[in-house]
Amino acid sequence: MTGRYRISLAYDGTAYAGWQVQPGQATIQGELERVLEQLVGQPVRVHCSGRTDAGVHAHEQVAHFDLAEPADIRRLQHGMNALLEADIRILRAARCSPEFHARFSAVGKEYRYHFWTGAVMPPPLRLYRTHEPGRLDIAAMREAASYLVGHHDFAAFSANPNREVDGTVRRLETLDVRSRGSEVTVIAAGEGFLYKMVRSLAGFLLRVGRGEVAPEHAREILASKVRTARVPTAPPQGLFLWKVFYK
Amino acid sequence: MTGRYRISLAYDGTAYAGWQVQPGQATIQGELERVLEQLVGQPVRVHCSGRTDAGVHAHEQVAHFDLAEPADIRRLQHGMNALLEADIRILRAARCSPEFHARFSAVGKEYRYHFWTGAVMPPPLRLYRTHEPGRLDIAAMREAASYLVGHHDFAAFSANPNREVDGTVRRLETLDVRSRGSEVTVIAAGEGFLYKMVRSLAGFLLRVGRGEVAPEHAREILASKVRTARVPTAPPQGLFLWKVFYK
Repeated sequence: MTGRYRISLAYDGTAYAGWQVQPGQATIQGELERVLEQLVGQPVRVHCSGRTDAGVHAHEQVAHFDLAEPADIRRLQHGMNALLEADIRILRAARCSPEFHARFSAVGKEYRYHFWTGAVMPPPLRLYRTHEPGRLDIAAMREAASYLVGHHDFAAFSANPNREVDGTVRRLETLDVRSRGSEVTVIAAGEGFLYKMVRSLAGFLLRVGRGEVAPEHAREILASKVRTARVPTAPPQGLFLWKVFYK
Repeated sequence: MTGRYRISLAYDGTAYAGWQVQPGQATIQGELERVLEQLVGQPVRVHCSGRTDAGVHAHEQVAHFDLAEPADIRRLQHGMNALLEADIRILRAARCSPEFHARFSAVGKEYRYHFWTGAVMPPPLRLYRTHEPGRLDIAAMREAASYLVGHHDFAAFSANPNREVDGTVRRLETLDVRSRGSEVTVIAAGEGFLYKMVRSLAGFLLRVGRGEVAPEHAREILASKVRTARVPTAPPQGLFLWKVFYK
């Protein structure tokens, strides 16, 4: 009898070629599978709620895996953290139902994209913020965001709309722009996201904040359903997968 | 005619063997002198408010240097930031009086020492906090701190009391313990500090917070004027030189 385990983890994506195992590259999945094999003595496949791209961080990602022998939860968590580098941390581990699936059981996700608008980037934040020195028009960004929230065809905000197997229509529940001091954060939450959709939304909102594009342009771009240079993909280091929601 | 320049800078000390130039080692002073020489075409000596040790960070350090030719302040700051790694940032630059001296004109300094008391260290904080999982007795730490504030012989809190050229008596203006969520911060401010004094104060307060030493013990240790194993030196990565005060 196998048992299924669920973990929550945080990571700094700087040193990794993203979540997914790739030959010859350090990846989050690869690191987790390496330490689990060391701990249980046989190969373990780890499934996450959704892959993150190279350089993208996680405040809280969720994953599951099956073990042939029952494991002590505390020893599993401590063992994994002892063997992993400090840039990946297991926040919680639990035995879960064999029905639980990190990806298919998820009902929503929240992402946060962080810009730093100060003239100089504080060294401790340099790997976790996108530097955008200067004032952003937060009101304009919020207006543009208001047009994007809701049920839409987001083809114009996918980095690869032709390869979206479930189509390009999604319901964006939340798209908030928060500003505090030099920090501007875009918070996006919804059931599901297209490929690089959050970085595309952040890239577009940034152009609005700079005054390069009028907020109402968001409606036109949505309606066009065509991805063009009007929507740049913001760089990975500002993005955190913040939270995964389950029923 | 030479001109004197004053800079404020922040740095992540992780990759450096401290402030002071040392042959064959990367140091903060060495990096600043390297880029200044590149910019002005001749060797420049940089003087700071006080050296920081290997692995210690600065939220705001202050330094000065003399240039043979007058420099444009904005170009100087931008040029330095362009040539430096992102773990050292020039926050401000200004022409200053030839009377100004980063070290001798300073009237006080503030340091902050950060502990993280959560069970798991969040990856983005791993280089900037000392991990101390578990609950600390903040009230006991504050009581111990209250005995240490003021004018005392701090010989027992110097890592090298016999080599303190100005003696071991100092006035500690502030020694606060702040607690917010999993963050516990020791804030120390005063005119001057002995060698590794802040890390010694933090190491001692940590022992009090763990319940290993009674708060009143602080008085006894001060009176003993002897550095012993009762006062451990907390590790460098939790320490930030926070601010330097001038008249």
